[in-house]
Amino acid sequence: MAICLPFSIYYKEDTTLSIIISSCITILIGGILLLFIREREDKELKKRDGYLIVTFGWLAMSFTGTIPYLLSGAIPEFTDAFFETMSGYTTTGASILTDIESLPRGILFWRSLTQWIGGMGIIVLTVAILPILGIGGMQLFVAEAPGISPDKLKPRIRETAIRLWMIYLTLTGAEMVLLKLGGMSFFDAINHSLTTMATGGFSTKNASIAHFNSPFIHYVIVIFMFLAGTNFTLTYFGLHGQVKKIWKNEEFRFYSISTLIISVLVGIVIYQVTDYNIENSFRSSIFSIVSIVSTTGYVTVDYTSWNPQLTMGFFMLMFIGASAGSTAGGVKIVRHVILVKNSFLELKRLIHPNAVLPLRFNRKVVTKDITFNVLAFMIIYIMVFAVGSVVMSYLGVDFMTAVGSVATSVGNIGPGIGTVGPVNNFAHIPLMGKWFLSFLMLLGRLELFTVLILFTPYFWRKY
Amino acid sequence: MAICLPFSIYYKEDTTLSIIISSCITILIGGILLLFIREREDKELKKRDGYLIVTFGWLAMSFTGTIPYLLSGAIPEFTDAFFETMSGYTTTGASILTDIESLPRGILFWRSLTQWIGGMGIIVLTVAILPILGIGGMQLFVAEAPGISPDKLKPRIRETAIRLWMIYLTLTGAEMVLLKLGGMSFFDAINHSLTTMATGGFSTKNASIAHFNSPFIHYVIVIFMFLAGTNFTLTYFGLHGQVKKIWKNEEFRFYSISTLIISVLVGIVIYQVTDYNIENSFRSSIFSIVSIVSTTGYVTVDYTSWNPQLTMGFFMLMFIGASAGSTAGGVKIVRHVILVKNSFLELKRLIHPNAVLPLRFNRKVVTKDITFNVLAFMIIYIMVFAVGSVVMSYLGVDFMTAVGSVATSVGNIGPGIGTVGPVNNFAHIPLMGKWFLSFLMLLGRLELFTVLILFTPYFWRKY
Repeated sequence: MAICLPFSIYYKEDTTLSIIISSCITILIGGILLLFIREREDKELKKRDGYLIVTFGWLAMSFTGTIPYLLSGAIPEFTDAFFETMSGYTTTGASILTDIESLPRGILFWRSLTQWIGGMGIIVLTVAILPILGIGGMQLFVAEAPGISPDKLKPRIRETAIRLWMIYLTLTGAEMVLLKLGGMSFFDAINHSLTTMATGGFSTKNASIAHFNSPFIHYVIVIFMFLAGTNFTLTYFGLHGQVKKIWKNEEFRFYSISTLIISVLVGIVIYQVTDYNIENSFRSSIFSIVSIVSTTGYVTVDYTSWNPQLTMGFFMLMFIGASAGSTAGGVKIVRHVILVKNSFLELKRLIHPNAVLPLRFNRKVVTKDITFNVLAFMIIYIMVFAVGSVVMSYLGVDFMTAVGSVATSVGNIGPGIGTVGPVNNFAHIPLMGKWFLSFLMLLGRLELFTVLILFTPYFWRKY
Repeated sequence: MAICLPFSIYYKEDTTLSIIISSCITILIGGILLLFIREREDKELKKRDGYLIVTFGWLAMSFTGTIPYLLSGAIPEFTDAFFETMSGYTTTGASILTDIESLPRGILFWRSLTQWIGGMGIIVLTVAILPILGIGGMQLFVAEAPGISPDKLKPRIRETAIRLWMIYLTLTGAEMVLLKLGGMSFFDAINHSLTTMATGGFSTKNASIAHFNSPFIHYVIVIFMFLAGTNFTLTYFGLHGQVKKIWKNEEFRFYSISTLIISVLVGIVIYQVTDYNIENSFRSSIFSIVSIVSTTGYVTVDYTSWNPQLTMGFFMLMFIGASAGSTAGGVKIVRHVILVKNSFLELKRLIHPNAVLPLRFNRKVVTKDITFNVLAFMIIYIMVFAVGSVVMSYLGVDFMTAVGSVATSVGNIGPGIGTVGPVNNFAHIPLMGKWFLSFLMLLGRLELFTVLILFTPYFWRKY
């Protein structure tokens, strides 16, 4: 929080004091927690502790993260402040703010920073914690992580995390420079680069990226959204010249090729139904698609305004999610690839029930246990979506808003369809709905299992 | 088809000749096919032949089934006639007719009969064919089929099928008598009993069951829809006094208890938002819920007219489906039970990855292979729904109609939401949309795999 002070001071805002107090309160809470943990240092951490630490860590951050909003009066309602902070730390990007530009710069920077911190958290989570906890196919990509040679059984997690953080930092810096060159102010450039790399999508402008009428800025953001949705391990290889490894990765091939093909197809439809020129049609298409698939959620144009077909298409894209090992949320492409491959295999198995038909991903055999886990993940994801839609409906929003708000929250995207579309916000969602969507964001961000497991009696029984 | 003649003659309709000609044409086509099959009698039937016979059998029936509609001029367009016939044989009940009552009685009876024949086909399919083909968990219930003792390895399929057909026939007769007693005409009583037991839902009235303003008729139909959605094997046990066996069945327990609880809850909501009295609220609720869950699709009241919450709720119910081994379509409750149980087990497995945690259904262990198959079935079902919704959208219908028409077609229900809601019909769906929905009905009815396998190159390669 203290990092926000320079902006607050530079722009001579009266939020300076509230940011200082917020920092102090958070340090105090952190200190107390630290003392509390110290007391139990003699006990070894168990796998179960992992689930609790991750879930309650994110929750605690989201509670303390509200303090600057509340103290400065930027977001006076606690529910709204919590929603905004959870949307930040989970890198969702859904906002309850109706006039973003009226907020003090120090607070706006805090808002962007929550997403960037959230993104850092996700990197550690996917590299270090989820594979240990055995969450839905995360074992698949982590074996490829840099710093882990097949000879060494104990992965050097700390080193890997630091390397990936360096990439995260480098890309954020590179984007900032490019956005500044593209004509953004320094403040806007730093904020947008923070929220792009986290696939967050918070903007400092009411109109999101549509505010910046510059194709250069749009394309820069498309590229960095795409990179933020790429497995950071692959980016590491790319930066070290091992381009072959990138192309060998099935998930990346699927991610890049399908994004391009869909963008061209949707671009053609946009060209036909609007008076945009060819370049603008393609740009609107690829920006919206990469924004949703990477789960960033920036907006240059209202993708629900063209025609019902495209609205349906963009809604379905919310269930894709980018690469595992990136900061993107959602289902992730690796899982979809495995699900589709397994469906074909299942059809083959019907003809030859006794044949051994292994599922391969990146030329390696995926064990039945992992496939099982991925299948269960997808089923639970669909269940959460279905139950969530019914709940949101009962909390008083219409059909499209219900399915849209749930899909975008659990997928950590940001904008949805209906009255939470790309040019709307979440301010009008009923109070209970905001809490419920906040819960869904956390659920989606922590790959469902991490949170859901806490709700099983089994988890607490022998604890 | 010739069975329709008595009605055509009794009501002195000019369709008599066209029904006779239709019968002759169908007999002729059947004769030619029979000759064709005779030629290859020396070859033994393989498992692969099973898929082809089932899929093309249903298709061939649906093509020849159009002849009475076309010749009589009742449905002049071939696409419409095919949609109506496919909707009949798959026991869906979606209709393109805008004025059902204007149709000659002989043709109306043919329309109801296609559903009843479809229902008979489903019974053979689930008892005899699908378990052999190994489709999605069908092995689970068939082991319990009457006439199959655990000592005998070769199930007496023929005998079982005949026993279940007798139940089907008996229940149809019983319902007919009760509907006649309730005040229906003989013609209406026989038609509605044919389409209830098939969980079809074709009515002879434009307003469906709402035409009959009699609580007695409504409750009779609720009971028989419920029975038609019950595993016929259980009904067999029930008729033989083995009531204990029924209550021991997990699927039936879940089916009956949840239907009742949801009906009461929805009834309370209906009571609050309308001026209905308590009895009418409950009746509207249980009728609509049993109608959708049993995938019948009769209508006494427009369930999308109350409020958006209930519309969403009824839409979600379309993904349930009644019991396996009944004439109901859709996912089926047994699969949902397995999916939910497996999701909990998967959470347990995270804590104890090496523990043996078997999934039990009806106190028996469900093998991992079957669970795998059920998971894959559900994933493919969701994929079909998602892709189908996008396709319908692109064919030019709005968001709610797209998701509604696909959910109701693949689930073999009948009415959907949006412009294909309970008081609408499918007449306005674009031409290509009607063909696509017909395909989805077949896909859903034959438990997805049977049809999809024909689209894999693998199926044809070594054939």
